[in-house]
Amino acid sequence: MATVEWDPDADGVRLIDQTRLPREEAYVVCRTAAEVAVAIRNMVVRGAPAIGAAAAYGTALAAREGRLEEGTAQIRAARPTARDLFWAVELVERAANPIDEAHRIARSVVEACKAMGRHGAALLPHGVRVVTICNTGALATVDYGTGLGVIRAAEEAGKRPFVYVMETRPRAQGARLTTWELRKLSIPHRLIADSAAGLLLQRGMVDAAISGADRVCANGDVVNKIGTYPLALLCREHGIPFYVAAPTSTIDRDTPDGASVPIEERSAEEITTFAPPGTDAWNPAFDVTPAGLVAALVTEHGARAPSHGCAGERARV
Amino acid sequence: MATVEWDPDADGVRLIDQTRLPREEAYVVCRTAAEVAVAIRNMVVRGAPAIGAAAAYGTALAAREGRLEEGTAQIRAARPTARDLFWAVELVERAANPIDEAHRIARSVVEACKAMGRHGAALLPHGVRVVTICNTGALATVDYGTGLGVIRAAEEAGKRPFVYVMETRPRAQGARLTTWELRKLSIPHRLIADSAAGLLLQRGMVDAAISGADRVCANGDVVNKIGTYPLALLCREHGIPFYVAAPTSTIDRDTPDGASVPIEERSAEEITTFAPPGTDAWNPAFDVTPAGLVAALVTEHGARAPSHGCAGERARV
Repeated sequence: MATVEWDPDADGVRLIDQTRLPREEAYVVCRTAAEVAVAIRNMVVRGAPAIGAAAAYGTALAAREGRLEEGTAQIRAARPTARDLFWAVELVERAANPIDEAHRIARSVVEACKAMGRHGAALLPHGVRVVTICNTGALATVDYGTGLGVIRAAEEAGKRPFVYVMETRPRAQGARLTTWELRKLSIPHRLIADSAAGLLLQRGMVDAAISGADRVCANGDVVNKIGTYPLALLCREHGIPFYVAAPTSTIDRDTPDGASVPIEERSAEEITTFAPPGTDAWNPAFDVTPAGLVAALVTEHGARAPSHGCAGERARV
Repeated sequence: MATVEWDPDADGVRLIDQTRLPREEAYVVCRTAAEVAVAIRNMVVRGAPAIGAAAAYGTALAAREGRLEEGTAQIRAARPTARDLFWAVELVERAANPIDEAHRIARSVVEACKAMGRHGAALLPHGVRVVTICNTGALATVDYGTGLGVIRAAEEAGKRPFVYVMETRPRAQGARLTTWELRKLSIPHRLIADSAAGLLLQRGMVDAAISGADRVCANGDVVNKIGTYPLALLCREHGIPFYVAAPTSTIDRDTPDGASVPIEERSAEEITTFAPPGTDAWNPAFDVTPAGLVAALVTEHGARAPSHGCAGERARV
């Protein structure tokens, strides 16, 4: 399975369609920057590092089309919160050879994930029971994963992790994608409703929580999938470490704190399925976990508490 | 609309089928105690006080069938957490005229709700923005409601409340039932994913939270719908009062604290809809909110902080 991959035969970027998983393993090929922007907006590709890689290829396509400015504007407007998107577009825009730069970015995402896996797995004891939100695996990152990469590295190190997967409403990335990846990896797991995290921690059923990030601010605040903040608060209440795994490309040194980050609001229809016709909904996609609630931020360089800020974190590229 | 009502023509208890709302307003008539037990287990009727009223009629039917012991055993086994069920069965078992006692219980539920509404509405300022979980309205209580009764009383007092409705996975009682009731009452509201409560409070978008209860323990711990505890914890973090509205029939003076309450676990299928076939799930229906997180417990007798326990609270009947 390749989440984001250049397809030389099709002369475009090939994406696994994450909106159709786990029912169906279907692929979409984007041959223009506009098609990449649509795929990002509709969540055919999602997860900050995977969005970054797709945006890199989209920018290379825009350059090839001779409409770099317009193409990158479309890509930048597709989803406003994930830091990696802006990072990748900027790198490819400046590159002498855009498609080579996109290839380099896609490869570097995987390398960073494997390094994060090693650093993060070292934090987890043998037999660790972990709770995780959203999907932070290969699907979110070209390959291997951020949060799920840490769990995968723990499994590869013989630590036998057990994973509680939050379903992650409204798009159910946990229920649809994380369970699907864990099954392929033969890592034992159970699905829970997002709201069951409270009882899970109350009963002492987990030893650690781990998430990815869509943007890490200069002060260490973590912007991630809606529901991450309540989970982190529960962890503090119950003395459980809350870890965030994210490559340095997710760190935004230009944004001072979480309050400054634009929070994407998605359509009401994502949550009104069961409601009476005409019901209005508020559907923000992300929330802000204050740096003080994060026991360690795991990047490709190592793991450390982000409560003194991330402005000094070296960028990967 | 009558949630739980004796139907003299059908010679049984008539329940609105809450599993089919809001798509369809259908009714079920139970003519035996066994049918009442099935309706409670399958959540045709749900909400602690409504379950209590249905259980009262079920016990009267068991008495009429001449199989009181067997019939009440079935009803008691239907759902283990809601206190009102056990309270109602016991009252009707002891009564000289079981059906009259069941009528009296159903009426007393409505009277208690109206009294709670008055006491609770007094706590809410004009223009209050409230977040609420699950369904705590007429559907949960024969008529009027506990938590939603307080909101309704605030509306009737001209306070113009605005309600954020948590969808309440996995059964979506908020999305399906609370929105439906608020629409009928013309009270403005918006639906949110359960996990969006964190950002909602982070952004200062609400002034109070209000829930019902399935059981209130002697020490004031509140057992309620899964997700209530994380909401209460968020309220403490953001200095927002968390109120619980429940009649004294929900108070269980024989259970010292939340850790002693059996937590119902429902079938995995309630949450595995989108997951790969064979995915395992943990699906507890309730969690425990420690008494210290509750700003006030509103009963038919008034409102007061339950942090010094509820053992002295007078029973309603």
